[in-house]
Amino acid sequence: MKRRKIKFGLVGLGRLGYEHTKNLSESIASAELVAICDMNEEALRTTAEEFDIPKTYTDFEEMCKDPEIEAVVIVSPSMFHVNQVKIAMDAGKHVFVEKPLDTSIEKCKECEEIVAAHPELTFSIGFMRRFDKSYKIAKQKIDNGDIGRIILVRSYCQDNKKFIDMAIKFGPHSGGQFLDMCIHDIDTIRWFAGGVEAREMWGIGGCYEYEEYKNWNDGDNVSALIQFEDDTMGFMFAGRAAAHGANIETEIIGTKGTLRIAAVGTDSLLEVLSENGVCRECYPDWQARWHDAYIDELADFADCIITGRKPEVTVQDGTKTLEIAYRCKESFESKKMLKMRD
Amino acid sequence: MKRRKIKFGLVGLGRLGYEHTKNLSESIASAELVAICDMNEEALRTTAEEFDIPKTYTDFEEMCKDPEIEAVVIVSPSMFHVNQVKIAMDAGKHVFVEKPLDTSIEKCKECEEIVAAHPELTFSIGFMRRFDKSYKIAKQKIDNGDIGRIILVRSYCQDNKKFIDMAIKFGPHSGGQFLDMCIHDIDTIRWFAGGVEAREMWGIGGCYEYEEYKNWNDGDNVSALIQFEDDTMGFMFAGRAAAHGANIETEIIGTKGTLRIAAVGTDSLLEVLSENGVCRECYPDWQARWHDAYIDELADFADCIITGRKPEVTVQDGTKTLEIAYRCKESFESKKMLKMRD
Amino acid sequence: MKRRKIKFGLVGLGRLGYEHTKNLSESIASAELVAICDMNEEALRTTAEEFDIPKTYTDFEEMCKDPEIEAVVIVSPSMFHVNQVKIAMDAGKHVFVEKPLDTSIEKCKECEEIVAAHPELTFSIGFMRRFDKSYKIAKQKIDNGDIGRIILVRSYCQDNKKFIDMAIKFGPHSGGQFLDMCIHDIDTIRWFAGGVEAREMWGIGGCYEYEEYKNWNDGDNVSALIQFEDDTMGFMFAGRAAAHGANIETEIIGTKGTLRIAAVGTDSLLEVLSENGVCRECYPDWQARWHDAYIDELADFADCIITGRKPEVTVQDGTKTLEIAYRCKESFESKKMLKMRD
Amino acid sequence: MKRRKIKFGLVGLGRLGYEHTKNLSESIASAELVAICDMNEEALRTTAEEFDIPKTYTDFEEMCKDPEIEAVVIVSPSMFHVNQVKIAMDAGKHVFVEKPLDTSIEKCKECEEIVAAHPELTFSIGFMRRFDKSYKIAKQKIDNGDIGRIILVRSYCQDNKKFIDMAIKFGPHSGGQFLDMCIHDIDTIRWFAGGVEAREMWGIGGCYEYEEYKNWNDGDNVSALIQFEDDTMGFMFAGRAAAHGANIETEIIGTKGTLRIAAVGTDSLLEVLSENGVCRECYPDWQARWHDAYIDELADFADCIITGRKPEVTVQDGTKTLEIAYRCKESFESKKMLKMRD
Repeated sequence: MKRRKIKFGLVGLGRLGYEHTKNLSESIASAELVAICDMNEEALRTTAEEFDIPKTYTDFEEMCKDPEIEAVVIVSPSMFHVNQVKIAMDAGKHVFVEKPLDTSIEKCKECEEIVAAHPELTFSIGFMRRFDKSYKIAKQKIDNGDIGRIILVRSYCQDNKKFIDMAIKFGPHSGGQFLDMCIHDIDTIRWFAGGVEAREMWGIGGCYEYEEYKNWNDGDNVSALIQFEDDTMGFMFAGRAAAHGANIETEIIGTKGTLRIAAVGTDSLLEVLSENGVCRECYPDWQARWHDAYIDELADFADCIITGRKPEVTVQDGTKTLEIAYRCKESFESKKMLKMRD
Repeated sequence: MKRRKIKFGLVGLGRLGYEHTKNLSESIASAELVAICDMNEEALRTTAEEFDIPKTYTDFEEMCKDPEIEAVVIVSPSMFHVNQVKIAMDAGKHVFVEKPLDTSIEKCKECEEIVAAHPELTFSIGFMRRFDKSYKIAKQKIDNGDIGRIILVRSYCQDNKKFIDMAIKFGPHSGGQFLDMCIHDIDTIRWFAGGVEAREMWGIGGCYEYEEYKNWNDGDNVSALIQFEDDTMGFMFAGRAAAHGANIETEIIGTKGTLRIAAVGTDSLLEVLSENGVCRECYPDWQARWHDAYIDELADFADCIITGRKPEVTVQDGTKTLEIAYRCKESFESKKMLKMRD
Repeated sequence: MKRRKIKFGLVGLGRLGYEHTKNLSESIASAELVAICDMNEEALRTTAEEFDIPKTYTDFEEMCKDPEIEAVVIVSPSMFHVNQVKIAMDAGKHVFVEKPLDTSIEKCKECEEIVAAHPELTFSIGFMRRFDKSYKIAKQKIDNGDIGRIILVRSYCQDNKKFIDMAIKFGPHSGGQFLDMCIHDIDTIRWFAGGVEAREMWGIGGCYEYEEYKNWNDGDNVSALIQFEDDTMGFMFAGRAAAHGANIETEIIGTKGTLRIAAVGTDSLLEVLSENGVCRECYPDWQARWHDAYIDELADFADCIITGRKPEVTVQDGTKTLEIAYRCKESFESKKMLKMRD
Repeated sequence: MKRRKIKFGLVGLGRLGYEHTKNLSESIASAELVAICDMNEEALRTTAEEFDIPKTYTDFEEMCKDPEIEAVVIVSPSMFHVNQVKIAMDAGKHVFVEKPLDTSIEKCKECEEIVAAHPELTFSIGFMRRFDKSYKIAKQKIDNGDIGRIILVRSYCQDNKKFIDMAIKFGPHSGGQFLDMCIHDIDTIRWFAGGVEAREMWGIGGCYEYEEYKNWNDGDNVSALIQFEDDTMGFMFAGRAAAHGANIETEIIGTKGTLRIAAVGTDSLLEVLSENGVCRECYPDWQARWHDAYIDELADFADCIITGRKPEVTVQDGTKTLEIAYRCKESFESKKMLKMRD
């Protein structure tokens, strides 16, 4: 009996789009990438050639008309997300969309309706941390009650300082630290804390090294403290310039124990003993950190389509994380502690 | 030439008082403990016998009249601190007083005046973390510019869950987590951040396991986010019941690097490999954690008397940490983000 | 342009054979597994079905006659290895054979001749550690001169105690610890030390817990000290029953620095803080430890075929590691320190 | 009741002699150092002044005639040890002698007789590792059966490369790596393994960087594999030039678990996160590594005198470790595996 392979189309050949393209082409046994779409024809051509992808499109609607395609991966700029979700789902395609769900809460709400209107289709969002091995084991232990009731979730997201120039260049279009980076921390905290609602938050930060971030009302390093409806506390920190690499760490403090993920961020088992002491060298970038998780989230998505199982990440997760991120951003900008709902 | 030994008197034979008594008697070459004072005559007698201390007093004023005593260590309940500082300094004694400086800002201000009136005497406060080996190296690296400008200091203070019954019993008289535990984290943050003033803070928390803490308007676990005048961020977390031991850790994130102290809290170099994996066993209690620092802070104090050097910890440090601690407590109780000064 | 996929046949559906089957079917973009061979017809049928493999054989010679097959992976019992290499290469197939190369030095020498007779074909052996991320980085650092001249390589290989019953059952047919486990350590040491020849060795050990191993002249735990021609020292330890998991660690001590691989054996970034202290949970078994390396070694083999590049692991590596392993075994059995060559 | 303080005399003001002098003067409550002896009058004078020691001697016999002195610490060159033990014990003094016990087995046997002739006096040897906190906890766990039967003890002893010039200068007079460094590892292994006798050993090594060591028939790095009468295995490695600091680590592999001591050698709890990754800075020298153990071994010795308790380290331990060390050295020099007894 032939194993089922879901036929995918993908839109958006940026850095993460390229990752997903490579993974769908080479590393996911239950997937076959048959088409890619981008307005950059040169990128389209070379990528199609590199991964031997038969079809290319510059028009997303055209790609969605292709009856061979069963599922679409949306990695385009955020402001196009929900519009493309609508086009794809109306064309009968399963949809996997990158975070953030879109750039406004209104759009997210619209997306909730689109998804609700297509219960026959599988929909999910790219919160890849949930598919990381360490995060998954942590979640199992939490659900198993190993650490008791959650008291505090602390989540850090720092990029490698090596890429600060690119980060600054991309900064004005990124939505800012709270929308671009903390969105993952917010999902992480909500997921570990059991999906509770935020009650209040205070976002602070500043420009500690790169004054450019002030130009778009952002900080080069920011943090936020959140208290949830059930009193769970969340603390986030995001920065663009960690000397030791891409540092994404999470700690979950419970009444019976504590879990820490990636206090030392590396999947290399190597220790280097030199004049510097005993050293571990860390992930250089987020691509290295999440390599396996990016594969596993799409493999899981394909499996959901094949088996009819519902993905764990829902459209509501997309809306709620964005609501919290916006509220943190508003707190940062207004210099006020805010309630989640006025 | 005979080495100089400062002759000490000590008041307060509680747990920490006993530590200081033992250290002054046995481990500090430049100190000689000649008198102890407590209202508990039984404790007085057995402790004097155990450490071969010649004189005992039940009246602090009487002890301060003893011309042999050059310096006094005050480890009595907090509300007596400043009054005793005054008695001792007016009697011409050098004074080392435990944290917190007292239980009100007014008393702290009064203490500032007393100290100012006795420039000929050495005065310091028991912020022992500053004398811990790891904290000292961290401070040197920071002052050396190794990690650049400070962005965020995170400081945790958790007691071992084993002692929760005692903690609850002592709870109503402790002043609450912010005054009793966070006071050290506040001093740590201020010290590493270069003595800057707090601008705003938000304290939150709750009773996640022990409802008793509500009885005295406290939480069993609390946290606070502080922003300082120069934008430095401080995050504190305090809890009474860590499963893995006494967990006191501090992280200093700078623009050029990050320092972490006691992510794994133990001075044992032992790793245990068993069915549980590869494990490090942690400090059971704060006495074990700060054993050497308690010795070194008093040795340093004695050395300041001998050499005339000024102690690094000043009476103003005592006032300012208490001001911040009270403001965090007020924020926690009022459920409002507060400015340091209205 | 269509990407090239090498068409593979595989013989031997034991535990490792199943791993390779799964990897060739699902995880190696440049490979296509078109046929499997085993004498167990039930295993053949279910495996072919699970991975959708079109052809099955119970006769290895028959499989080698299949003109569609370009390369063969041999994972059969060791005593069949070289005979099957001959059949396959004579049939014009590229060959990847599992370690050990065979069960006698004579057979290894015979294999060298077979391989020499087919310079047009790609041949390699399954020393998967060389493809592990951490081992690869270590090798680069060594070749780069980072740790200077190699003084000592220490290499441990321990199975998880959970599987001791299976290990004992398989014990009499395993060849013993030196041939079955240390063969990898020997290759590791030779590889890091730059391919030097062994000069002398002393193998010792005993039955510390499982007397059964005496029945086949083996120990449940053994070690060997080797000195190489250039004075480099090698120390190996192999055991069947580590409480904390599958423990495979290597240390390379050089004149300028030291490298350690997998002192804590886990690719999970999770730390668990509980009554046991701060713990890392380790790899449960070798399949988990080498999962990625098993994929990468076959992907590299396929790439060698496609590009004409020579594999790093040669047939001579297979002979030499086996010679050393036999000599260590002989030392253990005779209780004598031995020279490599009499 | 006045606490008892044992009055000590000390001979030998080298580096370790200075350490002991400082500790006896400042850090051991049950000791009082009343006299020091050395042929270097300048060293005598300045040290006596620094630590306020009342009496100085250039003649050891003279010092032993002083009736005030109850106990003598011998830190003179090794070849004087047993002669001085005899003088001191015959004069009725308790004796603590540094390792090695002397420079020949004959002298050790003679010492056994001297000690046997003075059952009323306390005698011990400076195997300070046994008093290190981590080693003590390990020993308790072993004695408690936590790791089952001991299979292998691995023990490393490396000096910091920074001090290589001094090490080479001192090399010809050191007795060589096996006598000077491995003596501690041998005691460690015997202690953990329960005092068993060695059966066979093979010592190897070479000059990997510093050819000077050949001049006195030694290596700059050496190792030895030992099998004990009960099959326990011991592996030692000693080197003079570790890049990352003074590296003294021990691993005990048992049938139920494994213990590791000082895999990362530092009592600082600081982690430095920088371009080098996540780093721990290690002990710079053996003085730092054993600071507390040097204090605790003499405090324990004083306590044995006061209480009449027998010290754990016996004169026989001194003889047996030296026998093994000499046999390893002989194996290294003769390039033969040797039986402990011919």
